[in-house]
Amino acid sequence: MPDHSLHPVPTPGPRAVAAPAALRAAPQDGVRGDPAPAREVLERVLRGPSGLGTSALYTARRPGPPEPPRESPALHHPVAEPEVPDAGARDVAARDGWEHALRGPSGLGTAGLYLAQRAQPSTPCREIPGLYYHPVAEPDEVRVAEVSRRIKDWAVDEVALFPPEWEDQFDGFSLGRYMVACHPDAPTIEHLMVATRLMAAENVLDDCYCEDHGGSPVGLGGRLLMAHTALDPVHTTPEYQGPWAQSLHGDAPRRAYRSAMDYFLRLAAGSRADRYRHDMARLHLGYLAEAAWAQTEYVPEVWEYLAMRQFNNFRPCPTITDTVGGYELPADLHARPDMQRVIALASNATTIVNDLYSYTKELAAPGRHMNLPVVLAEREGLDEREAFLKAIEVHNDLMRAFETEAAALALACPTPLVVRFLRGVAAWVDGNHHWHQTNTYRYGLPDFW
Amino acid sequence: MPDHSLHPVPTPGPRAVAAPAALRAAPQDGVRGDPAPAREVLERVLRGPSGLGTSALYTARRPGPPEPPRESPALHHPVAEPEVPDAGARDVAARDGWEHALRGPSGLGTAGLYLAQRAQPSTPCREIPGLYYHPVAEPDEVRVAEVSRRIKDWAVDEVALFPPEWEDQFDGFSLGRYMVACHPDAPTIEHLMVATRLMAAENVLDDCYCEDHGGSPVGLGGRLLMAHTALDPVHTTPEYQGPWAQSLHGDAPRRAYRSAMDYFLRLAAGSRADRYRHDMARLHLGYLAEAAWAQTEYVPEVWEYLAMRQFNNFRPCPTITDTVGGYELPADLHARPDMQRVIALASNATTIVNDLYSYTKELAAPGRHMNLPVVLAEREGLDEREAFLKAIEVHNDLMRAFETEAAALALACPTPLVVRFLRGVAAWVDGNHHWHQTNTYRYGLPDFW
Repeated sequence: MPDHSLHPVPTPGPRAVAAPAALRAAPQDGVRGDPAPAREVLERVLRGPSGLGTSALYTARRPGPPEPPRESPALHHPVAEPEVPDAGARDVAARDGWEHALRGPSGLGTAGLYLAQRAQPSTPCREIPGLYYHPVAEPDEVRVAEVSRRIKDWAVDEVALFPPEWEDQFDGFSLGRYMVACHPDAPTIEHLMVATRLMAAENVLDDCYCEDHGGSPVGLGGRLLMAHTALDPVHTTPEYQGPWAQSLHGDAPRRAYRSAMDYFLRLAAGSRADRYRHDMARLHLGYLAEAAWAQTEYVPEVWEYLAMRQFNNFRPCPTITDTVGGYELPADLHARPDMQRVIALASNATTIVNDLYSYTKELAAPGRHMNLPVVLAEREGLDEREAFLKAIEVHNDLMRAFETEAAALALACPTPLVVRFLRGVAAWVDGNHHWHQTNTYRYGLPDFW
Repeated sequence: MPDHSLHPVPTPGPRAVAAPAALRAAPQDGVRGDPAPAREVLERVLRGPSGLGTSALYTARRPGPPEPPRESPALHHPVAEPEVPDAGARDVAARDGWEHALRGPSGLGTAGLYLAQRAQPSTPCREIPGLYYHPVAEPDEVRVAEVSRRIKDWAVDEVALFPPEWEDQFDGFSLGRYMVACHPDAPTIEHLMVATRLMAAENVLDDCYCEDHGGSPVGLGGRLLMAHTALDPVHTTPEYQGPWAQSLHGDAPRRAYRSAMDYFLRLAAGSRADRYRHDMARLHLGYLAEAAWAQTEYVPEVWEYLAMRQFNNFRPCPTITDTVGGYELPADLHARPDMQRVIALASNATTIVNDLYSYTKELAAPGRHMNLPVVLAEREGLDEREAFLKAIEVHNDLMRAFETEAAALALACPTPLVVRFLRGVAAWVDGNHHWHQTNTYRYGLPDFW
């Protein structure tokens, strides 16, 4: 998983910064090489505070009344899957054209979604000059509070996720704020909880098996595979089935994986579970590549690092956006090569965001921590600042490629479920950036400007 | 991958053996605890040399004329997917009832398929007393010859799979015979070639990265992930996309993975490719667990070994049976939990077959090679013979569980594609056993009887 270690580091605090000249022109000017003047007009419409555009797509939450903070648990009931987008949204989209609606940076991103709600952010906010991203509104505080309460109950009461001395770090991680920001279309708190439990589980495994809460590359392959069986169960003879099942209670990562997967399966058996298992197998392969390099003290080529990072990646998080949104992207649409490419590009962009925001934290941690700026510096002979700025460029290129290819896919396959899924992935990307940007408990920024 | 190292060991040759008393009653008496007298009658019908049963299902090859040995390559043409089973087969099945047709050991197995063709086997044949399996007819010699010719051409001319000094081992592996035995319903040679190339690629990677042709657990995670990207491609910025693509030509495993996947994708893009990638990610996770244990000199518990072996497993081979058969099991049917369980049980059974047949070979190899009898001996205090016999029992239990649950699935979901897929998996299990049993170039048996 991208750096989500529970350890915070002291942050230098927000800085007033200006982008280097070379970068100033780049951010938020839309897709590079996009000359169509008509599109510019549309972008202004889409990005204005009351513009038409994508906001109507999120019918599951808006404009209905706010959800009560303590809804009766929807956990054990089948969840109806809303038909989205509704007819109104389709009309808007048809009028503006999918191409225009999707291709602008605010089209696929969620920037325009909650502009009416947006006020001054309540949390500190830092800028990485030149970083191409879409700001989002502050996540709904009522939801954040309720998810935060429930995830702590789950962590403490159901899976004994952490010892008491880690409580501050758990709270500082702000899981509730994170997942509410990433899933603006979740129909209920329980849908958000499915994502939040999985995120908690993924991070506790990373900390305890791979990173700085007892993790080590030594023997990691065995530990990871045993944990993976909490997601992808063993089918063996009765004599050995029992000891395996019992093993899933053996430590916090396995308890958390098992329980979080169990809740997930209540909303999404079948192909969505298969998809999640596959993405988690990818994640675990990525951990193991990184661990192998750490053990052999190998500094990868930049392309090797980026390949590894496509696996050691946030991908399992955005790809459950349909489950968390209460609908299902059919397996055949998910498996389309163009959809696979879009998912990979989005997940890669959002993962490099993590490399950028965790750069200072990782430099301060014991041992050499690999991230894109570090690898660029080593392999391309750049100084730290140049490497960091080049990493921003890599991120921006991935973001633009994601948005361009997502728009092309929406044109090629303009079914409502595909379009909603693409918007869900984009919302996750934006929410993830927002969390990194505002989580001062965890992340500082280097002094490169 | 199960032991498929290209190294043969001297075999003790076929032995006249008698099963230990405790095992004599077990094999081939049908599903344990299956008392229905009516079923016994049906089993006799199914298992007789001219019995009705499953043979009519394989309409793709029989009773048409034999395929010409050098058909024009179907490689670049779209392949029509035959509707199976045909109406006649459905009638037979309906008359006999799916439950009866599937539940008997010959029902799901392919034993009855080619009984009319069966004569004395032309290759030496060893028995593991007490092993529950279904004999199959000798694979079609015309197909075997053609697949053998083409796979060697591919290996030598297209991917430079091995140096000249490994040629005998490549030939001795009998890839053509293996895949023809496992895919009796392949409509063309090219369909068989898709399976054969993947099998060759999987084995050369195992040899070169993991096993005794230069393999090592040290740094394996990095090498495996880079090879995995030949199946599950990297999506990154143009500057780094090129070096990654170039890397796929860097060694025989990656050349073979890339090329074999390319051919596979011509028959099966979309969800079948996704399925294959997932199964290969599982396989690679299994390799990495085994490697971690080797590095830390850890002998797993029996349940841990069996869990690892569910990943380091033949699974990627039987699960492409629909592609090789020229049809598609839809993703949603593949993802059903009961289908996932059946696939896991079948794959586990067929993988333990490999542990049993490669036991002597692995004992003779340098270093300690983990397999089920070795782990049983270490962890349960059994002598070598007791451990080997217990491993046979584990295998038999897995086989029976597979057949029982496959029959239940066929009842629960009696669609032709599900039933054909289940028969394809069963055919793979049987063909795999046949290959292990008859490949005297590679496998000997211990002297435990």
